[in-house]
Amino acid sequence: MTDASSLHVELLATGDELLTGQVIDTNSPWLMDRLWDLGVMVRRKVLVGDDREDLAAAMQEASGRSDLVVMSGGLGPTEDDLTAEVVAGAMGVPLEVHEPSLEAIRERFRKLSREMTPNNAKQARFPRGATVIPNRFGTAPGFSVRLGRAELVALPGVPVEYRGLCEEFVLPQVSARTGSAPAFRLVKLFAVPESHADQAMRPVMDDPRNASVRFGYRAHWPEIHVKWSVPDGGEAHADRILAQVRSIFGDAIFAEGKDELAPLVVAALARRRERVALAESCTGGLVAEMLTRVPGSSDVFGLGVVAYANEAKSGLVGVPPELLAAHGAVSEPVARALAEGIRGAGKATWGIGITGIAGPSGGTPEKPVGTVFVALAGPGGTEVVHRVWRGDRDRVRKTTAYEALDMLRRATRG
Amino acid sequence: MTDASSLHVELLATGDELLTGQVIDTNSPWLMDRLWDLGVMVRRKVLVGDDREDLAAAMQEASGRSDLVVMSGGLGPTEDDLTAEVVAGAMGVPLEVHEPSLEAIRERFRKLSREMTPNNAKQARFPRGATVIPNRFGTAPGFSVRLGRAELVALPGVPVEYRGLCEEFVLPQVSARTGSAPAFRLVKLFAVPESHADQAMRPVMDDPRNASVRFGYRAHWPEIHVKWSVPDGGEAHADRILAQVRSIFGDAIFAEGKDELAPLVVAALARRRERVALAESCTGGLVAEMLTRVPGSSDVFGLGVVAYANEAKSGLVGVPPELLAAHGAVSEPVARALAEGIRGAGKATWGIGITGIAGPSGGTPEKPVGTVFVALAGPGGTEVVHRVWRGDRDRVRKTTAYEALDMLRRATRG
Repeated sequence: MTDASSLHVELLATGDELLTGQVIDTNSPWLMDRLWDLGVMVRRKVLVGDDREDLAAAMQEASGRSDLVVMSGGLGPTEDDLTAEVVAGAMGVPLEVHEPSLEAIRERFRKLSREMTPNNAKQARFPRGATVIPNRFGTAPGFSVRLGRAELVALPGVPVEYRGLCEEFVLPQVSARTGSAPAFRLVKLFAVPESHADQAMRPVMDDPRNASVRFGYRAHWPEIHVKWSVPDGGEAHADRILAQVRSIFGDAIFAEGKDELAPLVVAALARRRERVALAESCTGGLVAEMLTRVPGSSDVFGLGVVAYANEAKSGLVGVPPELLAAHGAVSEPVARALAEGIRGAGKATWGIGITGIAGPSGGTPEKPVGTVFVALAGPGGTEVVHRVWRGDRDRVRKTTAYEALDMLRRATRG
Repeated sequence: MTDASSLHVELLATGDELLTGQVIDTNSPWLMDRLWDLGVMVRRKVLVGDDREDLAAAMQEASGRSDLVVMSGGLGPTEDDLTAEVVAGAMGVPLEVHEPSLEAIRERFRKLSREMTPNNAKQARFPRGATVIPNRFGTAPGFSVRLGRAELVALPGVPVEYRGLCEEFVLPQVSARTGSAPAFRLVKLFAVPESHADQAMRPVMDDPRNASVRFGYRAHWPEIHVKWSVPDGGEAHADRILAQVRSIFGDAIFAEGKDELAPLVVAALARRRERVALAESCTGGLVAEMLTRVPGSSDVFGLGVVAYANEAKSGLVGVPPELLAAHGAVSEPVARALAEGIRGAGKATWGIGITGIAGPSGGTPEKPVGTVFVALAGPGGTEVVHRVWRGDRDRVRKTTAYEALDMLRRATRG
């Protein structure tokens, strides 16, 4: 057993497309995140192109320093795919055909009724002595060898294959090496600046009983994730922290674990057999888009109106023109009238009305860019929230759409 | 002068957040892409954490191999920010205060009416002999030194600062070293599989007159980008290829260079003083969202309806209920009625109607998941396109939204 924090892991990805900016390597951050959950922080990540010497050098360096090297890419059928050959060269062994893999590749082509080329057979050749890692997500099997002080695992770069083989092979092996998995918890906050979250978490993080706990943040505005892992399966300890974190952030926590905002709202409405209708102005359809991205949303959402023009606000949603004239389109009474009007038009339990100034132009001293009004009309009346968000057009729209869904979440939970 | 293809460039980024998966390094792909345009392919990229030894080792290795090393991160005010100190250590020189930088930082804090801490003064200390790179995008200046055979440039990791200083300092310097910049062209295709694009491009790529031209692809479905660069400012040559590429792909090219689909459509409508109204079903507001993401879209877009339920299709958009009963919601006549109905309701020049089955459920043998009908109603009549797209819910929705905007682009160009 190796202590998780002292396991030296490096990642090495190969492929010209990664060095021209054509493809962004999202595999490595994904694996880093999963390893972090096991208490392991990756020490180094290297990208090299489809170049024999560069790949060989990077591989030798990494395996000289590490306990585990996870490689990705270079296992395809083309001439640029050099990984197996370069690993065999570094080990001083020949490549050998692995019959079960060759048969699996043949079978795959038979099923697709496609001709197998000699190049595809190349994907069944591995360094002598390698452990072959079967790949039920695609054509190219991975493999694992001993090189230097390291175990070197070579995986295909296609994300679904890379992630599948990490789940089946790499992560279980790391768990086995580092002992029992840590207990892991994550909460998602809406629109809390990371510095505020950090300050609010200080008492928990500085508590001596939590000295062995790893805390972390991830910010995808307007979502801020706070996560922690307790070593050696300390589930009860992780739950005690969860109780503290809930009492610190309260309603700002919109989801825990793998839950996400729009699916939570759709599920709550479906459970209550309720429906929502939307009248959006400055968000321009973003709330509708977030809701309808969720499979099954048609059970709880039937009508949205993007009422960008004043005519559309009064014509289709029934906002009285004199209200628009008296208060302006971006105002509390208009948001309220949008929510109540669309609730009626859509014969829905809930109506959401949104109006605001996303920018970059359209601001005034009284109503600067970022001013928004979000209204939720429901069986118990109408609630309106007024905010002035900072940031560019995208950020104002996104934060406002989240706010609308979050109001609906709070109204429909339980 | 160094030939662009033989200039050895490496990128080195530092920061624990990059090794835990918290933050995805998008700076490096951005710079790789910009360097590719200059004919330079980056040879290696390395990420290390905020660890003195790891950073020092990676820096020494990179500067031993490269002509240029671009570092990012580690220039902040906190204790984990080690870059200046580690570079000075590698050069065997002390850190020295750079008075103009210290004064600029003081001035920045004065303007923000915030107290400057001793930590912030740290950001004005550089290895003796370094060239300081002023940073008008943020607090931390960058710097550049000679180390080993390389020029080593250290930049802040904050994307807007990194990119700003690359534009102002790194890219002009690379251009100066490699001589005249290549001529660069890019076209964007809608829904052409990369393998088809590659096959269609073969005659151009294999033309011996184009032997010195670098071709590349980038796929963000449903956009496929085809790009090429001709060395030594071969503008006329690049344009000859552009003429060939246009004749190969014709109407599948929806944009060239930095242009994007929705802004092109908004600009064309604005130029023609025309407006569009939308009636979306399976895209659920995505087309409205794409249009309204563009600043100024309120001049050309006033009304969108997300008519998810049949009631909304007949009630607000005026699709006759007997049409829905006779053909089903996902049908050519209903798409047509949605487009024509919303064109009338929105008093717009153009009306778009979209209906389809995004999945994962709802498919039938006659109308499988991925079946969509997109209609464009305009002054000259109504055009309807019927497609069966493959892929998951997100992909069907996104491709369909692009198709709708692309139909409008073709109808409003010129």
